[in-house]
Amino acid sequence: MKTYINPSKSEWSNLIKRPELKAQELSDVVSTIFRTVEKMGDSAVRGYTKQFDKVEIIDSRVSPAEIEEACQLITQDLKDAMELASTNIRTFHAAQTEKTTVIETQIGVRCWRESRAIEKVGLYIPGGTAPLFSTVLMLGIPAQLAGCLRVVLCSPPSVDGKINPAILYAAQLVGITEIYKAGGVQAIAALAQGTETIPKVDKIFGPGNQYVTAAKSYALTKGIAIDMPAGPSEVLVIADETSNPAFVAADLLSQAEHGADSQVILLSTSQLILSQVQTEIQTQLAELPRMDIAIDALNNSSLIQLDSLEECIQLSNEYAPEHLILAFDSAQQFIPNISNAGSVFIGKYSCESAGDYASGTNHTLPTNGYARNYSGVSLDSFVKKITFQELNEQGIQTIGPAIEIMAEAEQLIAHKNAVSIRLKTLNNV
Amino acid sequence: MKTYINPSKSEWSNLIKRPELKAQELSDVVSTIFRTVEKMGDSAVRGYTKQFDKVEIIDSRVSPAEIEEACQLITQDLKDAMELASTNIRTFHAAQTEKTTVIETQIGVRCWRESRAIEKVGLYIPGGTAPLFSTVLMLGIPAQLAGCLRVVLCSPPSVDGKINPAILYAAQLVGITEIYKAGGVQAIAALAQGTETIPKVDKIFGPGNQYVTAAKSYALTKGIAIDMPAGPSEVLVIADETSNPAFVAADLLSQAEHGADSQVILLSTSQLILSQVQTEIQTQLAELPRMDIAIDALNNSSLIQLDSLEECIQLSNEYAPEHLILAFDSAQQFIPNISNAGSVFIGKYSCESAGDYASGTNHTLPTNGYARNYSGVSLDSFVKKITFQELNEQGIQTIGPAIEIMAEAEQLIAHKNAVSIRLKTLNNV
Repeated sequence: MKTYINPSKSEWSNLIKRPELKAQELSDVVSTIFRTVEKMGDSAVRGYTKQFDKVEIIDSRVSPAEIEEACQLITQDLKDAMELASTNIRTFHAAQTEKTTVIETQIGVRCWRESRAIEKVGLYIPGGTAPLFSTVLMLGIPAQLAGCLRVVLCSPPSVDGKINPAILYAAQLVGITEIYKAGGVQAIAALAQGTETIPKVDKIFGPGNQYVTAAKSYALTKGIAIDMPAGPSEVLVIADETSNPAFVAADLLSQAEHGADSQVILLSTSQLILSQVQTEIQTQLAELPRMDIAIDALNNSSLIQLDSLEECIQLSNEYAPEHLILAFDSAQQFIPNISNAGSVFIGKYSCESAGDYASGTNHTLPTNGYARNYSGVSLDSFVKKITFQELNEQGIQTIGPAIEIMAEAEQLIAHKNAVSIRLKTLNNV
Repeated sequence: MKTYINPSKSEWSNLIKRPELKAQELSDVVSTIFRTVEKMGDSAVRGYTKQFDKVEIIDSRVSPAEIEEACQLITQDLKDAMELASTNIRTFHAAQTEKTTVIETQIGVRCWRESRAIEKVGLYIPGGTAPLFSTVLMLGIPAQLAGCLRVVLCSPPSVDGKINPAILYAAQLVGITEIYKAGGVQAIAALAQGTETIPKVDKIFGPGNQYVTAAKSYALTKGIAIDMPAGPSEVLVIADETSNPAFVAADLLSQAEHGADSQVILLSTSQLILSQVQTEIQTQLAELPRMDIAIDALNNSSLIQLDSLEECIQLSNEYAPEHLILAFDSAQQFIPNISNAGSVFIGKYSCESAGDYASGTNHTLPTNGYARNYSGVSLDSFVKKITFQELNEQGIQTIGPAIEIMAEAEQLIAHKNAVSIRLKTLNNV
């Protein structure tokens, strides 16, 4: 980790540079796979699964028997833990339900919004080293609350042709029964275009490696919505002399173990805390199974000492971190100053892991600076908000003349006529 | 207009095909202009303005004197009309402000969301035949309500080097003072990348021709958010024997005059109404200044007779229209059946023009079937919703063990440690 002591503001943007993404280079691979899946459907998906996942899958749909079997394999402890997490996630997301309120903007002009579920959604869950069943809960629960008619889950099979049982258990816990053994670009291509087996969906959610990320961006150009653009995961921690260096080190490491391209940043007003955190990182790092990944990530990362907590928040707002941990006692009072962040953790007991798994907030958050212009996943991500309006005779008479004047000024005479013809009819009655 | 009587459901998808967009062909033009603007900044924008808008612009920023002059040119009637529209738009959008509610998912685990304005937003307003000052209100008012720090408006100058006074007046009415004379792809490229004069923004809003639309999609790949993907404007009207054929015809024409690529669809259970509407269209069409445009649009359009209003709503949901007019008496009872639409107009006095200008709802809506997976512009479009969480000692002790179990099952041991180290410290106190 690089350490910077009181850098000037003109240096800030350099200190918080993110590792470059090379999305462009992947676009040829992605468009080829999309075209092949479009043309050849299931057989193309099967072929790529054989090529990339090294396994021959005849029937990609996970059977009820396989789900049943997976449920047997999960320990009661893990079932209970998922149950607790689900309860909290459900409670927090259910509270995001928007109540319909009719606004009478003028007498006789009633306007309102109603939410409608996006009908078909696809959830992508990566396979590989860490089976991210927690993401099944984070996406499946709001999809269920929103009332999506069809929730389809794709996840790559391991070489034995199976999907990790914890993923299958989490899926059935949130009512998902349509699960396909398909991963990578080919899964996204199938969800975006449809095959004989896998349905074309309206919106695709979920994390993935840089290929999956590039495939989701490509799906956007095909008219499919996606949860948000993505980049490597990241955390920014702000600490002062009231912070616990061991807790801070643990939080930085929990982010660093995500991937070699993860980024962690520590801002502190205290030089002592900075050096204590460094020592703690060394101690804790030595015992981590994913130590090598964490070391790579720490190499992209910085410790920065600044003069004041206000400056720390300013720098954080420029960086726009996915996760922001305010690991100091007076954290509450700085909340109004936060303008760009995905999710914020207040005080020393609010570790990022809490939000990753079980506090109730969503862990699918904007990375790569997208916290400047995107929100994390919420119930809103699974619905459209449709506006409605109902004008009665008095309503059109009240606002009609203004519409006529504005439409005429925009030289849209048919727009004006649509009002005039109604006003004339009302005047003749 | 083509007429179809009771087509079978298997034919529906053919009847509601939209005209093809040719986004791909434009991408070379767009990427070239982006690269040139990135390299040469203002001078590139100036060059393209000379090439495409046929005018030499030395200082692209609109001066306070020009805004003052524009305000003098607007009639009091138009000022009053804009005032009324603004009041309604403000009332409706202000009601979308989300109140912060803290949810205690477990004792000691407090979670909530807070909205923060997207700091820098760019509004694009087309020039050309119809000066869309109404769009300035539709985008500027929610930007103002959200508290965006910097709201930048770009609009192409006419050959006299000026922006239409109604656009300038609307801008000052909603507090926008940073206005640039720049249009087309070069304006979007400037907003997406920044020049010496025009700032790089976080999100770009606003309508435009197919070049502007393609440029906005390209900006997405540069990390800039956009309001939504776009296509030609469209309306679907559902009528039965209680509908007024003259009103229906006027509504169809008000959409058709937007552009030659606009699409209008009428569904009706009544053959009589279908033929009466056709007659009315011919009568009203003859007097429209934009008759030629409307005729082109009507050529893309269909009149479809179906057996029941339920079927009409089903077909409408498949089409997912930008505007849906329920022009019949029993409209209210069909609201729950509507699943895909941008904005819905209930009953015979709720013409599309009302929502286009003055009822209070937003007129920036998903087209081209995007109503399946996108909402129209609202206050939400100008904010991010950041999640916050604060756990106290009891909170981490309640949910900590579940987090440890889940993190371990995902093989993320540093995630587990971040909890364990806190629980150990608490147990040792």
